[in-house]
Amino acid sequence: MHPIVDHIQPVDRHAGEVTCRYLDTLTKPPGSLGALEDLAVQLSTITGELKPSVAPPAVTVFAADHGVAEEGVSAFPQAVTAQMVANFASGGAAINVFARQIGANIEVVDVGVASATEAPGVVNAKLRYGTANMVVEDAMHADQALAAIDVGIAAVERARTAGARCLIVGEMGIANTTASSAMLAVLTGESVASLVGAGTGINQQQLVHKVAVIERAIAARNADSLAPLEVLAKLGGLEIAAMAGAYLAAAAHRLPAIVDGFIATVAALIACRMCPAVRGYLIFGHRSHEPGHNIALKALEAKPLLDMGMRLGEGSGAALAFPLLQAATAMVAEMATFTDAGVSDNAAP
Amino acid sequence: MHPIVDHIQPVDRHAGEVTCRYLDTLTKPPGSLGALEDLAVQLSTITGELKPSVAPPAVTVFAADHGVAEEGVSAFPQAVTAQMVANFASGGAAINVFARQIGANIEVVDVGVASATEAPGVVNAKLRYGTANMVVEDAMHADQALAAIDVGIAAVERARTAGARCLIVGEMGIANTTASSAMLAVLTGESVASLVGAGTGINQQQLVHKVAVIERAIAARNADSLAPLEVLAKLGGLEIAAMAGAYLAAAAHRLPAIVDGFIATVAALIACRMCPAVRGYLIFGHRSHEPGHNIALKALEAKPLLDMGMRLGEGSGAALAFPLLQAATAMVAEMATFTDAGVSDNAAP
Repeated sequence: MHPIVDHIQPVDRHAGEVTCRYLDTLTKPPGSLGALEDLAVQLSTITGELKPSVAPPAVTVFAADHGVAEEGVSAFPQAVTAQMVANFASGGAAINVFARQIGANIEVVDVGVASATEAPGVVNAKLRYGTANMVVEDAMHADQALAAIDVGIAAVERARTAGARCLIVGEMGIANTTASSAMLAVLTGESVASLVGAGTGINQQQLVHKVAVIERAIAARNADSLAPLEVLAKLGGLEIAAMAGAYLAAAAHRLPAIVDGFIATVAALIACRMCPAVRGYLIFGHRSHEPGHNIALKALEAKPLLDMGMRLGEGSGAALAFPLLQAATAMVAEMATFTDAGVSDNAAP
Repeated sequence: MHPIVDHIQPVDRHAGEVTCRYLDTLTKPPGSLGALEDLAVQLSTITGELKPSVAPPAVTVFAADHGVAEEGVSAFPQAVTAQMVANFASGGAAINVFARQIGANIEVVDVGVASATEAPGVVNAKLRYGTANMVVEDAMHADQALAAIDVGIAAVERARTAGARCLIVGEMGIANTTASSAMLAVLTGESVASLVGAGTGINQQQLVHKVAVIERAIAARNADSLAPLEVLAKLGGLEIAAMAGAYLAAAAHRLPAIVDGFIATVAALIACRMCPAVRGYLIFGHRSHEPGHNIALKALEAKPLLDMGMRLGEGSGAALAFPLLQAATAMVAEMATFTDAGVSDNAAP
């Protein structure tokens, strides 16, 4: 296990109860702001504060390649990972646009792209040039999975030092829905066919092939479903490990983390299997169109904020959800109470 | 019918098709931003532009009272309408907080509060001191309904003159879920029991009473379900009529309007029954917890952006959805194309 686990405390239930009571003094019918009220309570349990701030947020995108791409499981060639890293660096990808919208600094971390990424501003934390093909051999060694977790932890340290109050973690890696699907099938015991989807856009025939590739990899690797690090090393990816590390670090520092879609949620599941207390620090941004996402969310008993039929990754769905966190904190900080405003409280007995 | 109807043109399908094709040139798998892409297309059909702006938005809250409140259908006393108008004026209500978050100017319009509202900044457009009790007599005269529609139109004119590019319309009026439920039952033919909910928070016994009151009012008023203005005058409310007027004006000026929850959607249904072309200009912000909202949404074939279990009104759910419109416009305006970024397009045949 990773030593950061010893630094993670459960969230502060008492702070949540204080916020819960305070919400009922505000000028609105009790409970009438629904999930926004739940969000305010959760942010208090995370931070220990009645009126926390979540701004500014930080976006970190981890990029890496997957050896299993050579099995033809993706609609896009592997070169797209490095091309998209360059696109992130020049500010043209969806996550750049959404990060600007929410006033987030964005950092791109190469934790294992299969070619050199020389774009300015990209953090070079490359551990290897992509994972191995998990059908043939373990995707990576266990010590590389731990090192990738450390890359995620270090990124959170940088974001925190720069003043971030909320973390959004995204990914880029051609074939990473394949790796995530394999991990999720092992971690949950669900069938591969039930959770595999079209990823970035393969057709039905390619989907059948993708299922078969994942089933072969799972059988060949024979990972222990109760050993999250082993599942991560044998079937995972370097960027997925870094994301798991980032969630662990968010919990250790009591920072809220907004989880993105399918791949991010599988990384979050790994982090929570390593340390169940991490779960309380996670806010789920959106429900992805990828079928496995529902299974991953169910495993974490999570209900996402948005349901927009998105399936892009990069952290895009998490970034879109951020204004809801801001609204939740503003509601607590700025709304008048019944007493302040001279409004009659509920007159019903 | 109201003369503004003659100034409403259908949305621009061609502009939407242009945007649809452009979206597939951006650096993301086709369709991978789901409902955000649909939103970008709709905003183009509304404005006729590939890259429209929705900022700044304007929030207008219409307030009025309902004679039917004397039947004991609400959890709060009627005085709360005026008290909340004062709370809006001093900036302490939820909609004030959310309007600030999205950089919206907020205007509060008294179109028929049952007492004098003297808070500074409130627009006095009072047509009468609340509607009549619809169980006993028509809620208002037909010419008052038309005058209230004009109040809504005038508010949109002011917002537009001040530079607003997107409209958010909210309401405050104790007992207005009762009026809205009565209107919706008549307009759709659904049973009252199927669509009535707890409003701001009545109990089960009060709910049974509320259903009975609405059924009595519907029977006594005998409004023609195919005559939206008659339904509005006999069973509606002054703030609901003003909201319908605002949606009509938004359509006439080709401005996107974000529809809030249950009451707003019933007002939107009235506007669309008066002029079906209005529908294309409406974006639905959220799905309310109020059971009738699903029925109203279905009548308009609408799928809201958010589903947060909220039931506050005031425009709060529409304001929370606004950042998604901004994100949709930023996506189109700022994302790089595959060609610009040198990213390989989908290699699959």
